[in-house]
Amino acid sequence: MSPAEQNQQLAVTERTRHRRLREQGSTARDDLDAVLRAGFVCHLGVVVDGTPMAVPTVYGVDFGTRTLYVHGSVASRSLAQAPDTTVCVTVTHIDGLVLARSVFEHGVNYRSAMVYGIPELVTRRSDPDALLHGLQVVTEHCAPGQWDYARRPNAKELAATSLLALPLDEASVKIASGPPEDGEGPDGELGLWAGVVPMRTYFDVPEPDPALPAGTSVPPHISAMGTWASAEPV
Amino acid sequence: MSPAEQNQQLAVTERTRHRRLREQGSTARDDLDAVLRAGFVCHLGVVVDGTPMAVPTVYGVDFGTRTLYVHGSVASRSLAQAPDTTVCVTVTHIDGLVLARSVFEHGVNYRSAMVYGIPELVTRRSDPDALLHGLQVVTEHCAPGQWDYARRPNAKELAATSLLALPLDEASVKIASGPPEDGEGPDGELGLWAGVVPMRTYFDVPEPDPALPAGTSVPPHISAMGTWASAEPV
Repeated sequence: MSPAEQNQQLAVTERTRHRRLREQGSTARDDLDAVLRAGFVCHLGVVVDGTPMAVPTVYGVDFGTRTLYVHGSVASRSLAQAPDTTVCVTVTHIDGLVLARSVFEHGVNYRSAMVYGIPELVTRRSDPDALLHGLQVVTEHCAPGQWDYARRPNAKELAATSLLALPLDEASVKIASGPPEDGEGPDGELGLWAGVVPMRTYFDVPEPDPALPAGTSVPPHISAMGTWASAEPV
Repeated sequence: MSPAEQNQQLAVTERTRHRRLREQGSTARDDLDAVLRAGFVCHLGVVVDGTPMAVPTVYGVDFGTRTLYVHGSVASRSLAQAPDTTVCVTVTHIDGLVLARSVFEHGVNYRSAMVYGIPELVTRRSDPDALLHGLQVVTEHCAPGQWDYARRPNAKELAATSLLALPLDEASVKIASGPPEDGEGPDGELGLWAGVVPMRTYFDVPEPDPALPAGTSVPPHISAMGTWASAEPV
């Protein structure tokens, strides 16, 4: 591998090393980035008061600085208790249910990224510019165009907000796809149907706030969200 | 509250106590059960080799014994390292993106359940009947009717399978719904569009395994899955 090619690969660590069969582990940065771009919420793995938690929250990625920003007060509590502790940010897309001839060969087609790292707490006090930038990244990830359209946070709102910033260095990417694999063996003779039931996720037509004055039009960047779907395989 | 009514309520513990504003915490068993019934995968919060992880995996619930079964080899590794340790099982449905006039008031409409408990590892060696029952529960949760249709696990396959069994005792249920809430304040005068972009998830038309003999028909319990959608609010 050339240095340029190496740069496109994620380092394999003990916790990102791939262990199972049917899934395909990927160490390509492009696959990691595609999974993160296609996602909408993540699950943050943290320990709070001694209990592991998987907390759903929104996120965003600055692909220039390769920084993952995660929203959430639980995360901040965790970090206040245990700074310099690793967390896990998981983004999962479910693409389908794999129905095989045997129960044992059943599975799920999915794409997931588990990012590990020691997060930095970003607050108005610690770094107001970084906080504003992180909020922009998260907002634009969830609703591209909304940062320039909506009213941005004022000083009071920024004081009530915090983010976790995580370097995009260590990640485990897994992609499982395709039909079941027990068609060639003896189970293929059972005469049972087998295949994949695809799962699709998409944004539907925007529903206006009932408090909106009559005639307020939907801006193009919001009506365009109806074309988004996470179900496109990478 | 009568004893019967109390029985329908989840106990509130330090880690399930509700802390935030816009979301609504629920202690009703019916809400917990509805979120779990509507889900397809969960994220398991565990600590492995000292690192918190949020691991996507399939699950199922026996509502009779109120036992949550979780699939996954990572979970088993975690349990082998640290028996009698609490884990967290999170099921999340994303119902929509809430676009407010101000960035600060943006949010997500969602339903989530975070179940906490000390899991029991169920293996063929520890309890073969419980393992078979748990696999039935997980299979029927993902694809109702499939346990009776597909070939069930044989002894060798059961030896290669393990489940976590978790009592459905302690859980935090959160439901956020409705339009943005900044229409009545000064931001309502900005003339900006605000509302909800609904997110929908559904099973699409089943895709047959290319290895299937021509003319193998889709059984009714599988073709019926196309009507499933998680986006129905509880």
